[in-house]
Amino acid sequence: MSSQPTLVVLGASGDLAVRLLFPALLSLEFRERLEDLKIIGYARQEWSTDEFHEHLRAAIDMDGVDIDQKYFERFIDRIEFHGGDISVSALKGLEPELDGPAIFYLALPPGVFADAAEKIAQAGLADQTKGYRRLVIEKPFGTDLETALELNEQLHRYWREDQIFRIDHFLGKETVQNMLVFRFANRFIEPVLNSGHVDEIQITVAETLGVEGRSHYYDGIGALRDMVQNHLIQMMTFATMEPPALWEAEMIRDHKVEVLKSVHAMNPDTDAVRGQYSAGLVEGVPRVGYRQEPGVEPTSRTDTFAAVQLHVDTWRWEGIPVLLRSGKRLAAKAHEVVFRFREPPTSLFRHTPLEHAEPNWLVFRMSPSEATELVVRTKQPGLELETRESVLRADYATADDHEASAYESLLLDVLEGDHTPFLRFDEVEWSWRIVDPILKAWEHGAPEEYVGGSDGPAGQHRFLGPGHYWRPLLNPAK
Amino acid sequence: MSSQPTLVVLGASGDLAVRLLFPALLSLEFRERLEDLKIIGYARQEWSTDEFHEHLRAAIDMDGVDIDQKYFERFIDRIEFHGGDISVSALKGLEPELDGPAIFYLALPPGVFADAAEKIAQAGLADQTKGYRRLVIEKPFGTDLETALELNEQLHRYWREDQIFRIDHFLGKETVQNMLVFRFANRFIEPVLNSGHVDEIQITVAETLGVEGRSHYYDGIGALRDMVQNHLIQMMTFATMEPPALWEAEMIRDHKVEVLKSVHAMNPDTDAVRGQYSAGLVEGVPRVGYRQEPGVEPTSRTDTFAAVQLHVDTWRWEGIPVLLRSGKRLAAKAHEVVFRFREPPTSLFRHTPLEHAEPNWLVFRMSPSEATELVVRTKQPGLELETRESVLRADYATADDHEASAYESLLLDVLEGDHTPFLRFDEVEWSWRIVDPILKAWEHGAPEEYVGGSDGPAGQHRFLGPGHYWRPLLNPAK
Repeated sequence: MSSQPTLVVLGASGDLAVRLLFPALLSLEFRERLEDLKIIGYARQEWSTDEFHEHLRAAIDMDGVDIDQKYFERFIDRIEFHGGDISVSALKGLEPELDGPAIFYLALPPGVFADAAEKIAQAGLADQTKGYRRLVIEKPFGTDLETALELNEQLHRYWREDQIFRIDHFLGKETVQNMLVFRFANRFIEPVLNSGHVDEIQITVAETLGVEGRSHYYDGIGALRDMVQNHLIQMMTFATMEPPALWEAEMIRDHKVEVLKSVHAMNPDTDAVRGQYSAGLVEGVPRVGYRQEPGVEPTSRTDTFAAVQLHVDTWRWEGIPVLLRSGKRLAAKAHEVVFRFREPPTSLFRHTPLEHAEPNWLVFRMSPSEATELVVRTKQPGLELETRESVLRADYATADDHEASAYESLLLDVLEGDHTPFLRFDEVEWSWRIVDPILKAWEHGAPEEYVGGSDGPAGQHRFLGPGHYWRPLLNPAK
Repeated sequence: MSSQPTLVVLGASGDLAVRLLFPALLSLEFRERLEDLKIIGYARQEWSTDEFHEHLRAAIDMDGVDIDQKYFERFIDRIEFHGGDISVSALKGLEPELDGPAIFYLALPPGVFADAAEKIAQAGLADQTKGYRRLVIEKPFGTDLETALELNEQLHRYWREDQIFRIDHFLGKETVQNMLVFRFANRFIEPVLNSGHVDEIQITVAETLGVEGRSHYYDGIGALRDMVQNHLIQMMTFATMEPPALWEAEMIRDHKVEVLKSVHAMNPDTDAVRGQYSAGLVEGVPRVGYRQEPGVEPTSRTDTFAAVQLHVDTWRWEGIPVLLRSGKRLAAKAHEVVFRFREPPTSLFRHTPLEHAEPNWLVFRMSPSEATELVVRTKQPGLELETRESVLRADYATADDHEASAYESLLLDVLEGDHTPFLRFDEVEWSWRIVDPILKAWEHGAPEEYVGGSDGPAGQHRFLGPGHYWRPLLNPAK
């Protein structure tokens, strides 16, 4: 029995595979991390391996990639092509090639996930007698609680939970992982990350892009399903989970689920806001409104912006608003997780203009720059005892660092069988339980219009308590 | 009765006055903060006011000072000269000129402080019927507990404590004041500044300079008296005091004295180290040893380096070493107050090389740069979950800021009657009570020799617990 592992990419000729997977695998080749991995591209085209190689050579954009040609050749050499559709009989054709551990990466449209997973198993390929058999799928995991539960039931019919690797690619981002490292590896910060010292958490994923040719998928789905239910809620679990005693996949995922289960029932009317962009100037460029985008229904009620206020009812966060928002065609690209700290006792500085200063903010920024910042108050230089805002800042990486892309990191973790950055089914389920009441409520009414290039609909500000405000999207320091 | 205040600088022709006081006053003129202040230069020379003006014009170094000539002229115009010695009859000659509030700044050798203060009062000038009368003196306030008590008794014979402004010019430094602002104006940091999270405090004032022509004063005094008893212990009070409820001079000074009184008795044999520099290369320049300095006894036992370990027995700091060190002719100039944080629970990162990483440090740096830093652990960019050291840093001032010199700030506070940055007598007394047992012990034996340009005597390392170390003096990030 060979122990050489094989990665089967189903949908190997598609966009996801060519644009993200194969480049990430090539980068792992360059880092010498693929070892003896064999890669099989599987797609319905009747290509020879040579033809597939030519397809990859033409499709993988090597511009600006600092990878020596020899790695590219070594990488190409480990890839075979196998033509076939998603049927039991066609998939059975793979069996002779898989005499060891194997990973099935479904780079397929979400509608066929369940079917493909079933067919692979029915073809006998999920059987682990020759070595592990793993299944990798990517969001969306359903479009609401009900369809997510259905999808899962289908997957579990033939696959055990520990064989399934559900990708939320945000969790592969280094700066998202750094948030956990920062929280748990530094003695000075974790003791103050609780409702005694923090009075608000904000998670923003703002884009300047529109639907960009994805209207076929996006229309009818919207920002709440596309971004909030998965990426933003996942980032929320990283920000609010209790520290695990050990860095172990199940322990970390248990702690994440604990947070998800403790999110208390919210009122969609007061705690959620949706918006849809109209035409506007985005970063100086005139852009059409969402309803004018190609492929979008001119009466579409799809939310291109969603903001929700959650409460995590743990001892640590009880009473603190956790605000999530995400939208397209906003004023600036900004991905950040921010903790806002309470005021110190104000009587101490009652003679100084402290009340106009920014509160302390701890900022984990993923975009446009990658940095950790602490917004603090320091003495205003000069004769008076006045304070001003200063920013303690550390950039995540320097020019000498070799950051890994999310897919590189996730693919390596699949190869190594580390479930930490992948979603366990209960995470998916409880995320849907959080957003499902909003989805139900949003079956009626319509999103609030916001001008493209603005900071989103005005309604997003109604959550906020007196003196609170969303961090501006445009910030000269970013 | 006029309310125009007068500042009388006694010793107006001397080095301190010309090099520090008058330039600071000129800068306050430029900032439009002197209002109707009249300044009288008092010295034993038989100069006219015009001659004194000429002396100032020649002596004040305007190179590189961006002050318009018109301010200089306005400044000169408010200065009169009065010749006389420190005798009651001569000082009485000032009386006709002082028909309102007055400040007497003793820019005189320490040996004559008490006498001058007495004579001023005996000449009737301390009488406050025409307005406040204030006395400004600068360290040293005695050379040990006994002489400090004597000096104070003499001062208090004619002056009330609230008339006396004792300068420790370190407390006028903006970055030292910023330490208090930072501690008390930021919600995220004060809750972790205690022995539950911090396991050591280090205060270093390292100089590359030698005695620089001050051997006449310095020999027989040494680093413990010259630096530790005043500047370093004062910085320690800023670092360890409880937060006052209000920013009020007496409340702040009460809290400082509370810390000083809670320093527990230490053993000079195990908790104090003295050193004396020998010849060496300092910043690449060959320098003679201390005993070869002009004016130094060739058998001098004066300490040019002193390090002490204190314990502040408050609830906040119980059990935590507070390490102070200061020395001349060291490897680099470095003034900093540093909090070292405990380790997070190590089991969490047992598979990562965390144990070789720096602990968290909170650094208030006054020199060579002015900055606040948090040394933290972040994810090492790349595929592995490893941590590395990052520095969250904020520079204290930018090119657009107008920092005030310590003397500017202190002079303005004297004019405004704000005692906050001045030492109350009990602060002086209790500082001496801390160092007096060491001074007594150091009457015997000799300091440990250290090579000029090194980091000081090896003995300074014997305080430190396992795994602890002094922050290096040379740090590329400084």
